[in-house]
Amino acid sequence: MRLRHKPWADEFINSHPEIVIPNPEELKGNWESEFKNDYPLHIEVGTGKGQFITGMAKQNPDINYIGIELYDSVIVSAVENAIAAGSPSNLRLLKVNGADLEKYFEKNDVDRVYLNFSDPWPKIRHAKRRLTHEGFLKLYESILVDNAEIHFKTDNRGLFEYSLISMSAYGMLIKDVSLDLHANMPEDNIMTEYEEKFSAKGQPIYRVEAKFV
Amino acid sequence: MRLRHKPWADEFINSHPEIVIPNPEELKGNWESEFKNDYPLHIEVGTGKGQFITGMAKQNPDINYIGIELYDSVIVSAVENAIAAGSPSNLRLLKVNGADLEKYFEKNDVDRVYLNFSDPWPKIRHAKRRLTHEGFLKLYESILVDNAEIHFKTDNRGLFEYSLISMSAYGMLIKDVSLDLHANMPEDNIMTEYEEKFSAKGQPIYRVEAKFV
Repeated sequence: MRLRHKPWADEFINSHPEIVIPNPEELKGNWESEFKNDYPLHIEVGTGKGQFITGMAKQNPDINYIGIELYDSVIVSAVENAIAAGSPSNLRLLKVNGADLEKYFEKNDVDRVYLNFSDPWPKIRHAKRRLTHEGFLKLYESILVDNAEIHFKTDNRGLFEYSLISMSAYGMLIKDVSLDLHANMPEDNIMTEYEEKFSAKGQPIYRVEAKFV
Repeated sequence: MRLRHKPWADEFINSHPEIVIPNPEELKGNWESEFKNDYPLHIEVGTGKGQFITGMAKQNPDINYIGIELYDSVIVSAVENAIAAGSPSNLRLLKVNGADLEKYFEKNDVDRVYLNFSDPWPKIRHAKRRLTHEGFLKLYESILVDNAEIHFKTDNRGLFEYSLISMSAYGMLIKDVSLDLHANMPEDNIMTEYEEKFSAKGQPIYRVEAKFV
């Protein structure tokens, strides 16, 4: 994603602590204190401009959602999206690095991980940065409940092929897979910004639900 | 596949016992006696007109190949293909039902199973007939060596999605997968008749290598 310089971003983010949690490391192991309930917690790693996580939060009021995004200039749009949606009480954002999830979550804190249109990192030497690399799967498993699922959508064929192989090699179950999501669109599908753009061009959207076993 | 009536088919098949083995049940557990060597044995279930299995036999003289096809009117073309290729000594055909593999092979007789453009049987009530249904995977496992692989190609998205899920549910490892084989064509890819036809129309060809573990 091309990042524009937004000098006012920090100020804007800091002025919305009810959406972008200021000290998430203090909530590790105790997320129900933030949401004031014990609903399941689903996180999206790389939440971008937030259309997906905001849509999910509105669609499913009995699930708590946290969108994780490192970049100031992008998460600003996610905050704006959340505000435009009426600041759903079951939605929060974290401005942190997805590689540091263990600083903010412990085993059993999280019930599901969503990955959407993640950076493909096509060069072999960058494979470790792919969000479905073994290292990340291990990271997710360390904060998820047992038998949890990862739901992953992308338009990138190479990343999707890699992800199926990586998840299978990790011992995960390929529970469901679609190689053209929009050909048989699930009624409850919430589109991301990228998904709208690429599917409008006629590119197939790939999706997998994989389960830790 | 549309089957034309070919009354002369039986006679033609019976006149080529060096290609279409007349009494395969007698070779169960003893296939090296037919090939006069102990090379690995790879079988294709649903071999159709035989372009793939004949091409593979010519490409890999140190592997024995058996194409399995039930229909007279189709296997005739496979015999013709084999003859045109000079009747490779490492190639045989069986005119039998793929569901009866255990009549002709026992555990460890076979080293790999190929499935190409298998009938998709799209109706749920016909799922058991799909060649990647659990019942067939169990059948293949019962005649394969341990840790053997199934290599499967198709243009049919629904069947391919189903197959990934079915193989994963069976506990198989998704070792390699391509969602557009012809976009990065492997040098050693042997095309089937269907593959030529569908890829010429621009349809993606899906391929998976799955391993029993």
